[in-house]
Amino acid sequence: MKLNAIENELLKNIADLHKIPSGAVNIRKNGEGIIRHSSANIEVRPKTDKPGIDVIIAPGTKNEAVHIPVLITMSGVVDVVYNTIIIGEGADVTVVAGCGIHNPGSKKSQHDGIHEIIVKKGAKMRYLEKHYGEGEGSGERVLNPQTLVMMEQDSMAEMELVQIKGVDSTVRDTKAKLAEGASLIITERLLTHQNQEAVSDMTIELNGRGSNAKVVSRSVAKDNSKQVFRPIVIARASSKGHVECDSIIMDQGKISSTPAITAEHPDAQLTHEAAIGRIAEEQLLKLMTLGLSEEEAEDVILRGFLQ
Amino acid sequence: MKLNAIENELLKNIADLHKIPSGAVNIRKNGEGIIRHSSANIEVRPKTDKPGIDVIIAPGTKNEAVHIPVLITMSGVVDVVYNTIIIGEGADVTVVAGCGIHNPGSKKSQHDGIHEIIVKKGAKMRYLEKHYGEGEGSGERVLNPQTLVMMEQDSMAEMELVQIKGVDSTVRDTKAKLAEGASLIITERLLTHQNQEAVSDMTIELNGRGSNAKVVSRSVAKDNSKQVFRPIVIARASSKGHVECDSIIMDQGKISSTPAITAEHPDAQLTHEAAIGRIAEEQLLKLMTLGLSEEEAEDVILRGFLQ
Repeated sequence: MKLNAIENELLKNIADLHKIPSGAVNIRKNGEGIIRHSSANIEVRPKTDKPGIDVIIAPGTKNEAVHIPVLITMSGVVDVVYNTIIIGEGADVTVVAGCGIHNPGSKKSQHDGIHEIIVKKGAKMRYLEKHYGEGEGSGERVLNPQTLVMMEQDSMAEMELVQIKGVDSTVRDTKAKLAEGASLIITERLLTHQNQEAVSDMTIELNGRGSNAKVVSRSVAKDNSKQVFRPIVIARASSKGHVECDSIIMDQGKISSTPAITAEHPDAQLTHEAAIGRIAEEQLLKLMTLGLSEEEAEDVILRGFLQ
Repeated sequence: MKLNAIENELLKNIADLHKIPSGAVNIRKNGEGIIRHSSANIEVRPKTDKPGIDVIIAPGTKNEAVHIPVLITMSGVVDVVYNTIIIGEGADVTVVAGCGIHNPGSKKSQHDGIHEIIVKKGAKMRYLEKHYGEGEGSGERVLNPQTLVMMEQDSMAEMELVQIKGVDSTVRDTKAKLAEGASLIITERLLTHQNQEAVSDMTIELNGRGSNAKVVSRSVAKDNSKQVFRPIVIARASSKGHVECDSIIMDQGKISSTPAITAEHPDAQLTHEAAIGRIAEEQLLKLMTLGLSEEEAEDVILRGFLQ
């Protein structure tokens, strides 16, 4: 199975893949699995009751990765997929998801990825999900990821959720439930431009003693784009939670940020902070005195901010 | 007109008054105005269409105060009152509101104070509102203040909203709309204990260029009490807004904090921060080594925190 130039370009953008990886992999294109491999420790198998796959990672699997990117290259595709990922006890793995849409036509193309992830006792997961849209057509590029992460005792997860650019509309819904001693870090980075709209809902439940979660969200709204952030952290046990939202608005961009922290246990420690503003004038001027144009200077600053 | 011992005690708690003040005043008791005076610059007159008063402060009035406390000393009173306060152009005055309920019986006693305040061009207002409940009866003590502040060009307001203790249920709704150059500081301090519930909604609209608002909220939830904070700041112009919520939970207290900041203008600068946690152990131990009991040490820390 060979991919064409557009498909390779999408794969590079969303999964940093320059070729089809050798290990466990599932590549889905326009609503169908086109490439699927399991490895010795990571089983990738299609679901029998609905579209999507089960990824079963054997207990104790270390330093392996599984890639499950989704490509959409046609106009008018609406693809809904259900994936279940089970990280076995004591495993330490990387999951690379993500979706790239190249919409060449005038009809909407949409991907709704519904993920359920179970991180078993003592397991460690790194999760990367990049979203990207492009295409010469006027058709909308829509991505609505739903992710539920169940974290068992003493498990760890680091999730990096990135919307690079070109996504016209997104409603992101991320939920995590943490048992005793579980630890979660979510980093979200979002760029919207033109008339794009992005909504990010996050609900993190600190249910177990000693659990802790940190959410860092950085976003940029350019042109006429709009963003809404609603991260929620609920502490039901002696636990720690921190939410941080930093946003830059440019042009006529609009951003609304509503982190909610709820302490239902006297030993819960919850904090959040948020800031919305424009690029600092001094920073811009400093770069411009070095010879950059205003646009180049902005670009450097935004890249740094979203790094 | 003389007040009895209970009434004097309530007045002292909610308005720091040891006697009936000499200037402009309106004291409302159990649903009726019992004492009313105007001064040369401050007119206090009953509304003709509904319960409540109009307080009209002449333009340019300086260093004067008006006291409009409300007392409820009976069980089973539900008192709804509409007050309009107009601070004339260039005036600089203090408004002392507040409500004290002494509920001796088993029926609910409730006061809903609905305030509309207009701070005219260039005027300055200091506003104090304290809420307090007591009484040997089992009847609930309920206080639901609604306050709308319209701030004209270059006006200033400093509002101190305090719930001392003894209020079983409160839903506080504070709204402010700021025109060009207007400046608002709101300080809220709330203590709940036993099974008390408190909800505080705040909506601040930064509509004018150069307007700015700061909200500082400090609260303590003891025993089984519950608190919900929902401050919202919306910036529609080049303006600044900052929201800060600090909370201490003790025993089985629960606190939820959801500040929302919405930037609808590229030159808006909005920030918020919140923290919920228990009293720092070191602070407690330090005071206890000085000879205080645990209870006394807690009391000292809470007083400092709510100062």
